[in-house]
Amino acid sequence: MSLVRIHNFSVSLDGFATGEGQTLEAPFGHAQERLLDWFAGTRTFHGMQGEPGGSTGVHDAFANNWGAGIGVEIMGRNKFGPQRGPWTDDGWRGWWGDEPPFHTPVIVLTHYPREPLEMEGGTTFYFLDAGANEALAAAREAAPGLDVRIGGGVATVREFLEADLVDRMHLAVIPIVLGRGERLWDGLENVEQRFDIEAVSGPGGVTHLSFTRRAG
Amino acid sequence: MSLVRIHNFSVSLDGFATGEGQTLEAPFGHAQERLLDWFAGTRTFHGMQGEPGGSTGVHDAFANNWGAGIGVEIMGRNKFGPQRGPWTDDGWRGWWGDEPPFHTPVIVLTHYPREPLEMEGGTTFYFLDAGANEALAAAREAAPGLDVRIGGGVATVREFLEADLVDRMHLAVIPIVLGRGERLWDGLENVEQRFDIEAVSGPGGVTHLSFTRRAG
Repeated sequence: MSLVRIHNFSVSLDGFATGEGQTLEAPFGHAQERLLDWFAGTRTFHGMQGEPGGSTGVHDAFANNWGAGIGVEIMGRNKFGPQRGPWTDDGWRGWWGDEPPFHTPVIVLTHYPREPLEMEGGTTFYFLDAGANEALAAAREAAPGLDVRIGGGVATVREFLEADLVDRMHLAVIPIVLGRGERLWDGLENVEQRFDIEAVSGPGGVTHLSFTRRAG
Repeated sequence: MSLVRIHNFSVSLDGFATGEGQTLEAPFGHAQERLLDWFAGTRTFHGMQGEPGGSTGVHDAFANNWGAGIGVEIMGRNKFGPQRGPWTDDGWRGWWGDEPPFHTPVIVLTHYPREPLEMEGGTTFYFLDAGANEALAAAREAAPGLDVRIGGGVATVREFLEADLVDRMHLAVIPIVLGRGERLWDGLENVEQRFDIEAVSGPGGVTHLSFTRRAG
């Protein structure tokens, strides 16, 4: 059974999953790297960068779950890049470098479809104008039998939660008060009732929440 | 040195510390008891009710810290009762019963001062129309050398945080999405930078956050 999974998604104490003012240089706006510090220190992240070292405790245990069994990712356009509106022919190929860390097909949700971008290392970006259900069907067709990762950003995660399509979700609650940005939980009152939830804290006051869809 | 402390203050994943629609029967509005389930199960809470039993794990370890060294509590009017505006002479003496669990002076912040209410067991409610700094001075005068607990509700906690008067704060983060109510963190961007923060999770997906004012 192919599952829909979310991994390594950070949220502040006040419920923001990204800051205000996304730009090319600041993918998380004024939140900067504060939402991802816990992740950047892990052996998993170091490995994704081709670097040695990194922590191997609870943060890494969660970080490292992101890839196994995943056959395809769905992401919002804002996780691909900060552009809005029609694409310009500027040759830019996204935030993820020549060899993105996904190594699978990646479906980018956008109201402006364009030709697929085949990158090194097995990642191909497909650009699709679709809602959650249609995107999920396309993802499962692209990777039959494998799990689908919802990669973010905030609006995309919220859309899949609203549509009740998420089977597993790992959140990292970061002890910061962002004050502004994009709220994860808006419109999701009582969403926790669809899940069993486990919490475990780690260094830096960061807490991992595991949401597992309730049987039946 | 007398400290200002907050204990056993619960907040949802989306940052609400109480629900919508407070009434006499529902002090937390639509949140009902969901914010306090972790506390209600502890030996500390059972003891406050004069009942035996209760858990003695991490939830109780935190719950039980609320009283030692405290000489006085400051609470907002909404923690005393759901009434708004001028007091009516209805004989009602608050949510806390004939023998409230505080056993100290309690300063109730209200724009409508009234005569003190002396209850059984050492609790006396004083009604004061004052801001945070003035209330704190009155509290320290009422209990020289002892710590001051800020008991809530949400607006009162926020006011003391905004005024940078809080030395220690224990929050319990509850894995629920309330959707509506009163937000704890509004206006408090970056407040975490004034504190060292430690997190530890317990049963039910509840996480305790300990904020300790940074030296210097």
